[in-house]
Amino acid sequence: MVSLNKRCTFQVGQDPANERTLTLSSSSNEGYFVSLRPFIAPKDSEKQFPFEWAFAGGPASARVEKKDDKTDVVYFDFDFDTNVHLNAENTHRGTITTYWKKWESGLVEERGQVFPFGTEKEGVDFFELWQPVDVDQDALTILSDKSPDQDIARSVVLTVDNADYKGLVVAVGRWAQGILFKKNEHSIKGVNFLRSVELANGQWETQFEYGTDADRFPQKFIASKGSTFYAKSLSWEVIESNFQE
Amino acid sequence: MVSLNKRCTFQVGQDPANERTLTLSSSSNEGYFVSLRPFIAPKDSEKQFPFEWAFAGGPASARVEKKDDKTDVVYFDFDFDTNVHLNAENTHRGTITTYWKKWESGLVEERGQVFPFGTEKEGVDFFELWQPVDVDQDALTILSDKSPDQDIARSVVLTVDNADYKGLVVAVGRWAQGILFKKNEHSIKGVNFLRSVELANGQWETQFEYGTDADRFPQKFIASKGSTFYAKSLSWEVIESNFQE
Repeated sequence: MVSLNKRCTFQVGQDPANERTLTLSSSSNEGYFVSLRPFIAPKDSEKQFPFEWAFAGGPASARVEKKDDKTDVVYFDFDFDTNVHLNAENTHRGTITTYWKKWESGLVEERGQVFPFGTEKEGVDFFELWQPVDVDQDALTILSDKSPDQDIARSVVLTVDNADYKGLVVAVGRWAQGILFKKNEHSIKGVNFLRSVELANGQWETQFEYGTDADRFPQKFIASKGSTFYAKSLSWEVIESNFQE
Repeated sequence: MVSLNKRCTFQVGQDPANERTLTLSSSSNEGYFVSLRPFIAPKDSEKQFPFEWAFAGGPASARVEKKDDKTDVVYFDFDFDTNVHLNAENTHRGTITTYWKKWESGLVEERGQVFPFGTEKEGVDFFELWQPVDVDQDALTILSDKSPDQDIARSVVLTVDNADYKGLVVAVGRWAQGILFKKNEHSIKGVNFLRSVELANGQWETQFEYGTDADRFPQKFIASKGSTFYAKSLSWEVIESNFQE
């Protein structure tokens, strides 16, 4: 089943809970995911790269186990991680073990520990709270029993992986999110993001795009598996789709 | 401006954050408010009265001061408080001082302290996190820059206050919430609640109603100031309305 989760709060170590971003995590039927975390009001020091973080990956990079009735364990080992690509100091490397628990209200808590100073040093606890939203609405609408069946929502995944670029776009329902790295450019010139939403009139509206290669993202997201989209000579392949032409 | 806030999380003392209710707090243009906190999956011990709490009041019972740029202080002294009406043990009495801070993301944190064992005993810290939602949508939709102007949304308040009953209904946009106490009945037979939403087709749908006198709530909520609605011989007066007939 596809999912689109909006983060409500982020709490690190002993800091008070806060949320400075409009973070959405998309996940496709087959488990491809993109999480983009743009600051809403970036500080001066954040304006050049107004993102807390972004990551993405395929099913193999988010291995899921059942811990108990209410809790899943997800072992993340991202294919795309801005901290890694940008060689950001004092950020985690390697697998992150996270515990996911659905509350009675439908909100989902995620708890885990990161090791920004290496696994032999002390870890830092984090807590994130997620609100599942309805992928079929263009305004962020809290998922409820009355929401349309998310099992039959659109789920399309596009990738690119050539000598210069690797990228992933996940489109679930009306929401598309993409990430594109220039392989040998480990500065902010090498990272690109896209969030786009299909309005009621069928037009796709870019909510934001970032990066010197943002024009290499596809402009359309809905096609059957095996299709190819070209964007400024970059060839994106549809590797997952439940859309029949 | 009207507001409708959905609670995302509730944290008391040293307990971990959680949310077991579908809590909505409504507030009218003039500052009348109703907060209903029904459990989503009540435990056996909660089934007779499946509410964490409910309260309501008029502008005078929620006095607001500016603490700093980002923080309001609200002094609550509720006109309606289920804990008080039901003489619930180990619950707060009197004014509650709360601090409200809007996050960059639009979520709003509320922090405060209650004194369930009396003001001379130790207080208990609490933290609640609120998501403002669009009053004009019948599905709970996260308020954003793209939402319709909440300043021109409907705002209607109805009250009753006679020898036997006191009640308050706040209707903002498509959402109505009501509370009705039987004055001399301090058991669960004396408390009644209503949450109703106007669907796209104009019909009002009851999301829940509770109490032996729930049929004494009005069935319609939109009328001009000074109008009177009768519900099973109870006469509700419209004391605030921006609706012109």
